[in-house]
Amino acid sequence: MLITFEGIDGSGKSTQARLLHAHAEEHGWRPLLVREPGGTDLSERVRTILLDPEAHIDPRAELLLFAAARAQLVHEVIRPALSEGRLVIADRFYDSTTAYQGGGRGIAEASWLRSFHQFVTSNLRPRRTYLVDVPLMVAAERRGSTERDRMEGAGDEFFEHVRATYLRLADAEAGRIVRLDGTRPPEVLHTDIVRDVERLLAEASVGTGTAASG
Amino acid sequence: MLITFEGIDGSGKSTQARLLHAHAEEHGWRPLLVREPGGTDLSERVRTILLDPEAHIDPRAELLLFAAARAQLVHEVIRPALSEGRLVIADRFYDSTTAYQGGGRGIAEASWLRSFHQFVTSNLRPRRTYLVDVPLMVAAERRGSTERDRMEGAGDEFFEHVRATYLRLADAEAGRIVRLDGTRPPEVLHTDIVRDVERLLAEASVGTGTAASG
Repeated sequence: MLITFEGIDGSGKSTQARLLHAHAEEHGWRPLLVREPGGTDLSERVRTILLDPEAHIDPRAELLLFAAARAQLVHEVIRPALSEGRLVIADRFYDSTTAYQGGGRGIAEASWLRSFHQFVTSNLRPRRTYLVDVPLMVAAERRGSTERDRMEGAGDEFFEHVRATYLRLADAEAGRIVRLDGTRPPEVLHTDIVRDVERLLAEASVGTGTAASG
Repeated sequence: MLITFEGIDGSGKSTQARLLHAHAEEHGWRPLLVREPGGTDLSERVRTILLDPEAHIDPRAELLLFAAARAQLVHEVIRPALSEGRLVIADRFYDSTTAYQGGGRGIAEASWLRSFHQFVTSNLRPRRTYLVDVPLMVAAERRGSTERDRMEGAGDEFFEHVRATYLRLADAEAGRIVRLDGTRPPEVLHTDIVRDVERLLAEASVGTGTAASG
């Protein structure tokens, strides 16, 4: 089962992904935590290009580089782990492209991006996506004044578009995407997430059982 | 005006692109010759990854990396040159993706790739594409026994699919793509190409005149 975490930088999604990973390890769910962009040799090389503050990258090229890293990650890491029955937890996946490059930079329609994501992932779809949503001010405070990389230096208007696109996605795909109020304490969010994942895992094992006996 | 050259490795397309470029320089057409993948800092970084024989690249990631290099080349080099009225000559462009990754590797439909190419190039379309077509044996002989990079080491069946896809494209877009018999002497091909380009340039200048007076 593939579970993804989404949200603007500073939303707390990475914290939640790590907390779920730790919980899953303790409970023997054999989890694998991956982050985008990265996770393979190729993806790390692409990541280095993407996060270089000196690089002048056309928005379309940026989208395509993220997608290349994702395609490699799916092929080399995620699919093999899923076929071993592991729980894969991804810190960002294709909704980030729709939100950041589609919504934030405004270079592609969400409808076209759906067919694009299918191509990139060869039709892999997360079973659940947690959108950790916080107001921009909260996210900016959490990011603090640490040195900003190229993506994070993009400005408030950009992040407004990103957040709005995430919220529209969550409305459009309510069956997959669960919106969480990221201003609540991390341990409270974590508890909600664990409860939901446990339910999904129980469903999946019932589903498998039914299929096997049917 | 954008003119592209396509064909399998060893077809002689790069020779023809260079010959046209030299002719265009002599005649004051202010040509610019670009090659794919490459031509910008970003594209060269991507090219290095793509042509590394040690790299294990998923076919979808490969397609996306080529596309990223192309998007950057269009944005940074081709569009500025076109807006200065220059003749841009490209040694490979998006038909290579359709032929190599679509046809050769079989990972995407030509119909979906059309919308993809529109996204990557922000709707830039070559005015003319010369498909330099040769049988596989001829191309293999011309490539000779020089050290093969990763793309060229892909085998005969692969190149058969690539060639067949090129030929289908030429049938489907007969108004844009001109198929040339690449077994003829280079200077004969070159003469045909120059005659065609002169006609296109004359049409373009008539077109501009009409638009200006209309």
